[in-house]
Amino acid sequence: MITSTSGSQVKGVIALRKKARERNARSLFVVEGPKMLFEAPPERVEKVYVSESFLKRYGNELSLRALPVETVSDSVLSAMSDTQTPQGAICLVKQYQYTAEDLLGGGQRAPLCMILENLQDPGNLGTIVRTAEGAGVTGILMSRDCVDIYNPKVIRSTMGSVYRMPFCYADDLHAVIREWKKKGVRVYAAHLKGELYHTGIDCCGPSAFLIGNEGNGLREDTAELADCLIRIPMEGKVESLNAAVASAVLMYEALRQRMARRSGD
Amino acid sequence: MITSTSGSQVKGVIALRKKARERNARSLFVVEGPKMLFEAPPERVEKVYVSESFLKRYGNELSLRALPVETVSDSVLSAMSDTQTPQGAICLVKQYQYTAEDLLGGGQRAPLCMILENLQDPGNLGTIVRTAEGAGVTGILMSRDCVDIYNPKVIRSTMGSVYRMPFCYADDLHAVIREWKKKGVRVYAAHLKGELYHTGIDCCGPSAFLIGNEGNGLREDTAELADCLIRIPMEGKVESLNAAVASAVLMYEALRQRMARRSGD
Repeated sequence: MITSTSGSQVKGVIALRKKARERNARSLFVVEGPKMLFEAPPERVEKVYVSESFLKRYGNELSLRALPVETVSDSVLSAMSDTQTPQGAICLVKQYQYTAEDLLGGGQRAPLCMILENLQDPGNLGTIVRTAEGAGVTGILMSRDCVDIYNPKVIRSTMGSVYRMPFCYADDLHAVIREWKKKGVRVYAAHLKGELYHTGIDCCGPSAFLIGNEGNGLREDTAELADCLIRIPMEGKVESLNAAVASAVLMYEALRQRMARRSGD
Repeated sequence: MITSTSGSQVKGVIALRKKARERNARSLFVVEGPKMLFEAPPERVEKVYVSESFLKRYGNELSLRALPVETVSDSVLSAMSDTQTPQGAICLVKQYQYTAEDLLGGGQRAPLCMILENLQDPGNLGTIVRTAEGAGVTGILMSRDCVDIYNPKVIRSTMGSVYRMPFCYADDLHAVIREWKKKGVRVYAAHLKGELYHTGIDCCGPSAFLIGNEGNGLREDTAELADCLIRIPMEGKVESLNAAVASAVLMYEALRQRMARRSGD
């Protein structure tokens, strides 16, 4: 059992938690708590640190999955943890390596992608990942300047969807958008100057929604790449919606249309 | 100019910021930054504290509105502020006093209400208030155990919609729901056991959506009061959506139906 907070493993976990550079160098990320631990694909789990009380309660589940477990004292777990009330387990998971191609879903259904440009808020990104899985999105493409998806706050808000939703960062976002358009993906940019409401487009075919930065929206040259600027109607004096909310409204309109199409067939 | 952080006004603002009891006793709440300050209805503004640099930049706007301004030093503003980077202005605003009746919108259009039970996350509540204004919701009813809407984190996430969206806390949520049903409001509860998808109901008439606590959902006896349990379809392995996201999907489905109805007439 690890009882000292000054050992190299403890320092290693803290570095992984705090620094994107460290996460990328080791190709790992940190998840916390029983839900995130037991939803992790066992083959991706590099290491699990648990408290004694966690081991007592979840020992069976841990052995069943044959996970590489190490027991640590409560103070060590606290030091490793990102949260004020640690949930007894911290787990190192191998990062994912999807290509932009993977985000199109492999042909089982029409691609439905989110393209995020310079999204900064961890809670927003995590919520988008979670909602995207619910709405049947096939993948999430991000510009390099988006917040790191392996940031612990993002991970927590995904509620496990990070394990199942394909995503990747594009060094050249415009190049991928052009490539997707060539493949027949219709790219709709959420934009205050949108000519059409989001309910007025057909997103049953291969589709992607472009969402910009929380404060500034999309860059102009990115918006210009879209096939169509769309907007979500807003009553009252609301100037914009939260980025995760806007994404949810768009993704669920796409799912609504797709379900109506399927049941109509 | 106030330069000491130990004076009674500074302590008063900090108490208002931190304690719901203090806010309710004085019937005030605290907002920060130029956007929230200048969107506040001038007749509701009790007091404005600004830094010298803010006064230099926004002096004209402040005089035009004849606001009761007091200049404070940067350190005083910092002490009063809830944020790490204060935006130069802190403002005390008079609380609103809506009745449950007010939330029904006064007959100009069919009521569209949100009913929130035991919602705990400030960001969720603020985002719901903001999205609700955008979707044309007429009012938000909350159980007494919801987070305080005047909590600074809620206020910030409303992005000003708190000034325009009618809301109230019900001492007896069930009584108000029964009352509304008598008046012809259809009450739809978002529920994992919902029989119908949210897209399968007609919410063009007087409607209300019931949303439960983030972790536990609705209390059973509250869900039983609903005319119908509805659910949002979820693909993948998603067990639930974030409360603000679920609310947004429901409210925007109602707006979609209502806009289609209007344009069809």
